[in-house]
Amino acid sequence: MTMFAANPGGWVSKTLLVTILAFTGIRSPMAGEKSPSDFLLRNGMEVVVIPDHRAPIVTHMVWYKVGSADEPPGKSGIAHFFEHLMFKATAHHAAGELDRTVSEIGGSKNAFTYYDYTAFHETVPPSALEQMMGFEADRMRNLILTDDVVKTERDVILEERRSRIDSNPQAVLEEEIDATLWQNQPYRISVIGWMQEMEQLNREDAKAFYDVYYHPNNAVLVVAGDVEPNAVKAMAERTFGKIARGPDLPPRIRPAEPEQNTRRTVTLTDARVSVPSFSTQWVVPSYRTAKEGEAEALDLLAEILGGDNRSRLYQQLVVEQGIASTAGAYFQSTMLDNTNFTVYGAPRGDAKLADVEAAVDAEIARIVKDGVTGDELERAKTRYVRSMIFARDKQKDMANMYGSTLATGGNVKDVEERPERIRKVTAEQVKQVAARYLMLDHSTTGYLLPQQQVGN
Amino acid sequence: MTMFAANPGGWVSKTLLVTILAFTGIRSPMAGEKSPSDFLLRNGMEVVVIPDHRAPIVTHMVWYKVGSADEPPGKSGIAHFFEHLMFKATAHHAAGELDRTVSEIGGSKNAFTYYDYTAFHETVPPSALEQMMGFEADRMRNLILTDDVVKTERDVILEERRSRIDSNPQAVLEEEIDATLWQNQPYRISVIGWMQEMEQLNREDAKAFYDVYYHPNNAVLVVAGDVEPNAVKAMAERTFGKIARGPDLPPRIRPAEPEQNTRRTVTLTDARVSVPSFSTQWVVPSYRTAKEGEAEALDLLAEILGGDNRSRLYQQLVVEQGIASTAGAYFQSTMLDNTNFTVYGAPRGDAKLADVEAAVDAEIARIVKDGVTGDELERAKTRYVRSMIFARDKQKDMANMYGSTLATGGNVKDVEERPERIRKVTAEQVKQVAARYLMLDHSTTGYLLPQQQVGN
Repeated sequence: MTMFAANPGGWVSKTLLVTILAFTGIRSPMAGEKSPSDFLLRNGMEVVVIPDHRAPIVTHMVWYKVGSADEPPGKSGIAHFFEHLMFKATAHHAAGELDRTVSEIGGSKNAFTYYDYTAFHETVPPSALEQMMGFEADRMRNLILTDDVVKTERDVILEERRSRIDSNPQAVLEEEIDATLWQNQPYRISVIGWMQEMEQLNREDAKAFYDVYYHPNNAVLVVAGDVEPNAVKAMAERTFGKIARGPDLPPRIRPAEPEQNTRRTVTLTDARVSVPSFSTQWVVPSYRTAKEGEAEALDLLAEILGGDNRSRLYQQLVVEQGIASTAGAYFQSTMLDNTNFTVYGAPRGDAKLADVEAAVDAEIARIVKDGVTGDELERAKTRYVRSMIFARDKQKDMANMYGSTLATGGNVKDVEERPERIRKVTAEQVKQVAARYLMLDHSTTGYLLPQQQVGN
Repeated sequence: MTMFAANPGGWVSKTLLVTILAFTGIRSPMAGEKSPSDFLLRNGMEVVVIPDHRAPIVTHMVWYKVGSADEPPGKSGIAHFFEHLMFKATAHHAAGELDRTVSEIGGSKNAFTYYDYTAFHETVPPSALEQMMGFEADRMRNLILTDDVVKTERDVILEERRSRIDSNPQAVLEEEIDATLWQNQPYRISVIGWMQEMEQLNREDAKAFYDVYYHPNNAVLVVAGDVEPNAVKAMAERTFGKIARGPDLPPRIRPAEPEQNTRRTVTLTDARVSVPSFSTQWVVPSYRTAKEGEAEALDLLAEILGGDNRSRLYQQLVVEQGIASTAGAYFQSTMLDNTNFTVYGAPRGDAKLADVEAAVDAEIARIVKDGVTGDELERAKTRYVRSMIFARDKQKDMANMYGSTLATGGNVKDVEERPERIRKVTAEQVKQVAARYLMLDHSTTGYLLPQQQVGN
């Protein structure tokens, strides 16, 4: 699963993404820090303000509750395409005016599209906050979508697909793994879209998408930084508050995944690959769909099994046995629908990929059989919660955590209570989720192989 | 890919289906036989009459150009469910009245749903033809869809799924193979639908489906038998002709399949399996989507590679090497969108599944490298065309061939010209389609394994 950003600061890999969305931005209540304020504008726009007075800077994000998993059949890529179009001319601003303004005041801006949401953000001095709100409020409804604008930008996303997916064996493989793991749920289609459908996207598609999804009642404003909630509220009312509420949105009920009865593999063999690697994934519940405690247990299972250098996979495969150059696990927790849990590894030196895979499987089997120790569970909880505290240092990560949670059906309380809920998880719960979800004969494994390994 | 019939005379297997839809019903022009008549009623209903005077019997079929591949997301199974509902009470006839009438006159009737169409048919003496038209015309628009009727019949399709799919490892595997082979095109979802979506189908879904798709301008009437076109036309005008034309249908443009870059496998291990087996499939063009000559070449490739006991796979694996109990190939040619080409095999005695698979792969590689001989191509053409002539003996098969062709965007001429187009195929064309489409590293293989073979 890959996120697409309009003006990428590089490829957002799966692992990095997990860092951004799952482990960071979660605040432990700290002495002397105010809790976030959360309120609705009259037009239905939700606003979350997270005070952070350490530096004279503010992060301003608008999250739309629409992502690639909301796209109509045959229109894959329209959500990400639309994110690009949001940087074009509006009734009040020329294309590029927002960029120039942010640059001139020494700020930064970007946007990204994922399965469940699309977000636009600017980091600026507090004095420029209302101006940013003005820009975002303007492009929420006043974009000028001409055939010419749409066709020109379509060439840009087609080129983006060529350079970021089609010329990258790992990305091509991930796309087909996702479409094999997911057989019904829309996460099976990559965020950027299938080439043959992107080529057909047109002004009508863009207009229809804009008119359904880009309204204040489908947006969440997250402001983190050196600001006061009351001042933010007044600014939001003067800018976003002027926009009329849009039509009610269709409910976000998407096709769900049927039970998986098979073991599936997806193998890409490519001359550009030098070191083989594999990843195995399972469909598991997300924080949004899980029964109480299961998502927290999966988070800790990922941490214990393969979260970092102190994890079982790393210690066993990389340190002890020395057969792997890398091995780990991650859980993509903040999703609207069921999500995926992944383990991965790559051999080192003369070790074989099959040996690495077998060693990863053995570590999973060991947890399924014997569970985890009280000690390692406590250490995992400590690492998890500490990573939340470290995340406070990054204003944007904090804003991301609130934005992604609110855009996937959660609320501020869900974010605030996360550390407490993590601390409640028992070793038995971790063992149970491993046994329930990580079954090898109901899994999907992807293999990335160098050309000479054909026939292995 | 499995077809669902309302009152099944047994499971319609993949292989049998190919016999019904691809190899049969195709008429070679024969001395003394009239060509089919083809005309439109004023309300847009197409009528094809195929004279067949050998016996005082007539086959009456109504084909709707809607199948499971036309279903909205999340509503899988509605096309087949609706086929069931068509046997319920209408404004003019009680539920079961059509059944009783057909039984009393010694006829037969049935219905089936597939990806691209839904068909209803009765075989009766010619004197009862107009009465059958009356029944079909009535239920085209006058069904009474109550919550009670819908809920009761929903229990029937849920039980049908349990008994025909969920309790049959082969069927469970085929479902997940299809969803792995097809990653975007709607053929990835089985005709009967995913259980969790079938459970939610309701009266509103049924009504919406009926109102979009069940109209004369979305139907083809095929009448084959001891009748004269003019008489059929008069009857059709008195019955179907009374129905108002419905709204124009949405174009049948469906999400298409992206290029496949990987080799995929799907493995089901189940205690109920006694003999292991495998099948490998590829996405290939259908008669509807192929460039000129390619579908014909694929038809002959299937015939030469694995059409029957004289095929390469059977002769090599079953007769010569004696390692397989069965081995063959088939091409599902009459589909609206791209379709699949499949090879399969199962070991005999102590032979291993892997050996059978390797032998099948070797036969494909041999055709890709050396092509086919002029002799075997001629024999394959002769067998193919002879099977069309034999099919003339089965009135229903003839009607099926016209119905399925017309319901997937073809016309009467396409059916009539098939033998001539088959005869034009060159050995080079057969070699070319094998090389272009049957690439092992871009394929999808399903394995059905007994429990003890886990880990093999």
